[in-house]
Amino acid sequence: MKALVYHGPGNKAWEDVPHPALLADTDAIVQVDTTTICGTDLHILKGDVPAMTDGRIIGHEAVGTVTEIGSGVKNLMLGDRVLVSCVTACGACRYCREGAFGQCLGGGGWILGNEIDGTQAEYVRVPFADNSTYPVPAGVSDDELLMLADILPTAYEVGVLNGTVRPGDVVVVVGAGPIGLSAITGARLFSPSLVVAIDLATSRLDAAKAFGADVVINNAVESAVAAVQALTGGLGADVAIEAVGAPATFELAVDLVRPGGHVANIGVHGAPATLHLERIWDRNLTLTTGLVDTYSTPTLLKLLTGRQIDAARFVTHHFGFDEFDEAYDVFSRAGDTGALKVVLSRTTTSS
Amino acid sequence: MKALVYHGPGNKAWEDVPHPALLADTDAIVQVDTTTICGTDLHILKGDVPAMTDGRIIGHEAVGTVTEIGSGVKNLMLGDRVLVSCVTACGACRYCREGAFGQCLGGGGWILGNEIDGTQAEYVRVPFADNSTYPVPAGVSDDELLMLADILPTAYEVGVLNGTVRPGDVVVVVGAGPIGLSAITGARLFSPSLVVAIDLATSRLDAAKAFGADVVINNAVESAVAAVQALTGGLGADVAIEAVGAPATFELAVDLVRPGGHVANIGVHGAPATLHLERIWDRNLTLTTGLVDTYSTPTLLKLLTGRQIDAARFVTHHFGFDEFDEAYDVFSRAGDTGALKVVLSRTTTSS
Amino acid sequence: MKALVYHGPGNKAWEDVPHPALLADTDAIVQVDTTTICGTDLHILKGDVPAMTDGRIIGHEAVGTVTEIGSGVKNLMLGDRVLVSCVTACGACRYCREGAFGQCLGGGGWILGNEIDGTQAEYVRVPFADNSTYPVPAGVSDDELLMLADILPTAYEVGVLNGTVRPGDVVVVVGAGPIGLSAITGARLFSPSLVVAIDLATSRLDAAKAFGADVVINNAVESAVAAVQALTGGLGADVAIEAVGAPATFELAVDLVRPGGHVANIGVHGAPATLHLERIWDRNLTLTTGLVDTYSTPTLLKLLTGRQIDAARFVTHHFGFDEFDEAYDVFSRAGDTGALKVVLSRTTTSS
Amino acid sequence: MKALVYHGPGNKAWEDVPHPALLADTDAIVQVDTTTICGTDLHILKGDVPAMTDGRIIGHEAVGTVTEIGSGVKNLMLGDRVLVSCVTACGACRYCREGAFGQCLGGGGWILGNEIDGTQAEYVRVPFADNSTYPVPAGVSDDELLMLADILPTAYEVGVLNGTVRPGDVVVVVGAGPIGLSAITGARLFSPSLVVAIDLATSRLDAAKAFGADVVINNAVESAVAAVQALTGGLGADVAIEAVGAPATFELAVDLVRPGGHVANIGVHGAPATLHLERIWDRNLTLTTGLVDTYSTPTLLKLLTGRQIDAARFVTHHFGFDEFDEAYDVFSRAGDTGALKVVLSRTTTSS
Repeated sequence: MKALVYHGPGNKAWEDVPHPALLADTDAIVQVDTTTICGTDLHILKGDVPAMTDGRIIGHEAVGTVTEIGSGVKNLMLGDRVLVSCVTACGACRYCREGAFGQCLGGGGWILGNEIDGTQAEYVRVPFADNSTYPVPAGVSDDELLMLADILPTAYEVGVLNGTVRPGDVVVVVGAGPIGLSAITGARLFSPSLVVAIDLATSRLDAAKAFGADVVINNAVESAVAAVQALTGGLGADVAIEAVGAPATFELAVDLVRPGGHVANIGVHGAPATLHLERIWDRNLTLTTGLVDTYSTPTLLKLLTGRQIDAARFVTHHFGFDEFDEAYDVFSRAGDTGALKVVLSRTTTSS
Repeated sequence: MKALVYHGPGNKAWEDVPHPALLADTDAIVQVDTTTICGTDLHILKGDVPAMTDGRIIGHEAVGTVTEIGSGVKNLMLGDRVLVSCVTACGACRYCREGAFGQCLGGGGWILGNEIDGTQAEYVRVPFADNSTYPVPAGVSDDELLMLADILPTAYEVGVLNGTVRPGDVVVVVGAGPIGLSAITGARLFSPSLVVAIDLATSRLDAAKAFGADVVINNAVESAVAAVQALTGGLGADVAIEAVGAPATFELAVDLVRPGGHVANIGVHGAPATLHLERIWDRNLTLTTGLVDTYSTPTLLKLLTGRQIDAARFVTHHFGFDEFDEAYDVFSRAGDTGALKVVLSRTTTSS
Repeated sequence: MKALVYHGPGNKAWEDVPHPALLADTDAIVQVDTTTICGTDLHILKGDVPAMTDGRIIGHEAVGTVTEIGSGVKNLMLGDRVLVSCVTACGACRYCREGAFGQCLGGGGWILGNEIDGTQAEYVRVPFADNSTYPVPAGVSDDELLMLADILPTAYEVGVLNGTVRPGDVVVVVGAGPIGLSAITGARLFSPSLVVAIDLATSRLDAAKAFGADVVINNAVESAVAAVQALTGGLGADVAIEAVGAPATFELAVDLVRPGGHVANIGVHGAPATLHLERIWDRNLTLTTGLVDTYSTPTLLKLLTGRQIDAARFVTHHFGFDEFDEAYDVFSRAGDTGALKVVLSRTTTSS
Repeated sequence: MKALVYHGPGNKAWEDVPHPALLADTDAIVQVDTTTICGTDLHILKGDVPAMTDGRIIGHEAVGTVTEIGSGVKNLMLGDRVLVSCVTACGACRYCREGAFGQCLGGGGWILGNEIDGTQAEYVRVPFADNSTYPVPAGVSDDELLMLADILPTAYEVGVLNGTVRPGDVVVVVGAGPIGLSAITGARLFSPSLVVAIDLATSRLDAAKAFGADVVINNAVESAVAAVQALTGGLGADVAIEAVGAPATFELAVDLVRPGGHVANIGVHGAPATLHLERIWDRNLTLTTGLVDTYSTPTLLKLLTGRQIDAARFVTHHFGFDEFDEAYDVFSRAGDTGALKVVLSRTTTSS
């Protein structure tokens, strides 16, 4: 089969690789019908993700069709169409018993396209298939469902729920890329009084408005801290969600919240930040970090099928599997191309 | 009357000052029968607390007797003996309505010995007296009760409750001074499986053992991270409580916890710390900071009167009011003197 | 002045009474500009509320203007226009310190129009005025604000928050009167996947649809249990909110929830219900009861001023103060008149 | 092999039955080394448990040795000694993903000795063996460990945690049989200020004292409500735990709690109770029911191995497998025999 293979920093190729085989009886092989590129994949290509080694297939998001199942798989049948989640879960370890599947100690967690071959391929082996896939519900397109493989549950769990967004809150989202827009989408579910988006790019702030931000702040132009203080009577925001993954944006998020506020970090960081404890030790702040656990995927599926989440609007570009290079190019130049999520499909040519 | 007056960094004097007067109808004047010195007072004398100005009386902990009450005070009578809490509360602002009295926006919070004259004096004006004092319960000594003015509620709320200590947890307390020992005392209430204390001073680690630490680690001698890893099967602690107030100890606390763990900062910090987001962004950590709110004071009073907390053992030295210099000296050289809390009383000479 | 005075079961009169006087320094006298009638007032007139005695003024909801203030009132000024909440709060007792103002032990709680004279009058004495009133915000009509005196915080706290409504939940509201419609309004803030309203009256079910119910069930016509089972794959609802106050509706609410579900009782009950423990002992249910505490009033004010709650649509009829008899008649025959909330104003004639 | 077989109400026999066979690849066969009798087994013998049919083996608690494992069992090996929990869990259904294993929709839950053959036998088939057994830890006797098969996690989760016992609380346990004593044991982990036990039998109240009750009330002799009011300044208990399973004791538990208090029902009920909503609708009560989920078993294992729970003292009598009749007799006449838990072992004769 063909797959997008990582060959060290800066190098990738859509090339022939062996068809995946079942390695454990709880594995399934899934034909990838649709996949997408994550910001994390760009980090991988920069060499930022140490577990990733030369020769491994990239990607951790897919919608596909089950083509083989191990004898220990209970809830899948050949031909089932499924969402392949970015997180796999053994289902039996301490963390899985607590619903913290992302921290699985039994061989799961975020391993696809990281510790094992991933989903940017014609077929993918999915470990612990019962706990790592979800049946495609009726009335939902693959494009929409694909947004539940990673960005929507990540932003919802790690940003919105960790940040404990509540009705009436002022919520600031730092960074208006796909994850930030997902955080806006998720925060809206709790009826905040104000959602504020901060970014350096006008195009992204325009997207933030379209996704439901009440106020947008270009912090290349104005002071985000001053603007949020002005919006909150000098007190600060109830919740700040970091959706970039850089020291400056994390530090900004901490500066934006009121005493008693929450800072929820979603961003993937490659460098340390400065934590101004001398300013915050007495402010009753709560700061959280997290990898998605996907415990919210069933909830988000209900909201998606009920049309309470609009996932389709994340998808700005379509490509065929033979167009991975172009897709990466469009996605990595999002500022210019306006790309949010690019979708690659077995049967599609670019749109 | 006499009081201990701050005269800029390094300077203080037990000197004559005017008797305090009621300024608001919700004030009370309390004769100070017993007071103590807090580690924060040492910070003040170093010039670290910007709100403190020349001429202000130091101190924010006391047990005393009500000698005057404003017309708006409802629940106190002349002659009542009361605990004066380090936190005063207007009772009506947004934060007070939520029980976050330490963040009071109505003129309260930690103001005694900081923004207004404090308790290291023969008399003290206590604002919002109804919400800022507690009647002395029967059967409890002033020494014991005085520990509820600051250190026990601070360690319990900001360390133990913010850290969400649960039965069976492995709890690490970084720093075994009075606040760290209070955190050990508070953590024990939740039946952790293991309490680990870390300090550089053998005398403090001995105290930690006496206060209930199961394991003590001198991190001048051995790696605390390695030791905690060894105790937890390589996973890390459930909760780490920072009870020092320095960048290194905060960073250590972050390094000590398991995925999904909690870091509760109690320490008063004067400098920023480095937060290694590149190591923790995906570990589902919760970090908290906080000033005490004293919402737990009624609970701690019940536990104190029921002898479920032993507060007397914090008090290592007694002095009279005319011995403030000696008391500060003994307290500030705790490593040598073995001082935990030093108590100064109207009627006592040194012991 | 004139006021609506209770004279034993079935008897009330709009009659001359003495002008209220300040009794405590924390009292305020408020000129009532607008008031309304609560379902609880009908209970009072039936003789169901034991604290209510002959000669007392009815009513616990108002918007008005401050005309006198005691010397201990800090945050109000003469001429301030305020919402008078149904719950007053001493601000200092154990329950008030925890935000459970409805359970105030210091002389507050629900006392207006119950233990003391109420708001269906030209003037009302409001105890603990600082903690029991809220400034009228700009851009909000008295009609709208009046809905925050009781029904909206009651339904939100006692129904929605006690019931822990979450995104994606199936929420059933039993009873579609003003409180039930308020519960639908409040539940919608959390993006449930489905809100189901149950009532016996078609007119109320129509109102429920208008207020945001996705499905309505007339349980005079069909089995509500069967219908909810059908909607939930046989499992039951996540949350059932009782908004009637009768044994049968409470028992129905218990029958409607899934294992692990919540039953939140809002209804005022005059008789015991049967709790089928033999059916629910092993179903992990949580059942809650409650009087409103009004801790959510600031949040609801934000949502009201931000137009995220539409409070105006509750008001179906307007009357002048000299039309109390007609207003009670219209409100008590809601099935015929379509009345939800009737508003009585100093300056209005009926509409 | 031999097993204790249920033959309709009142009838049971230790008789020859076929050796159990693996039915699913996730099954294990466990040789029962030690088992015990639960109060629920007495209910079964009265005919109260509808799922139980003639010919089925009784029992849902055991410590044993793995003798056969299905191909899908990942974490067990032949010869492993394990605790067999009363609850089995598929690990993949909605409820298992949330840790609510007792409500498993995938074929687990409480099925042993109820829906399938149980543990009062020489061998037992354990479904979903990975999720339903726990390795025997070093230094713990079978007797002690057996208490974690049901009563300790049941009382801890359904009584103590559902009741949200907190430091300083007044906790009342209604019923001082094995489950009530387990609730006392569990409540003590949270440092309540007062644990009150209520029972009709002096011998059980003596046991309650030995297990850590501060106050015992014989409600055949005195009014429990009056006694608890006297202990709490007229307010009522913070938490009441029902550990009997009768209408009168449930109703008593509701009467015992303060406004804002919690009633946690553990008892297995065969009849409805009366819920006096007319007294409690405005008291902010939380009532919970529940079957054990066993999510706390890992925590309790830590506390047991750390000697923070004394489980051995529950075991009052020992028998061999050929003495089931005598064991049931002793256990069912607990009032006379003083039996708490009776242990039956492969190799033991009565003690």
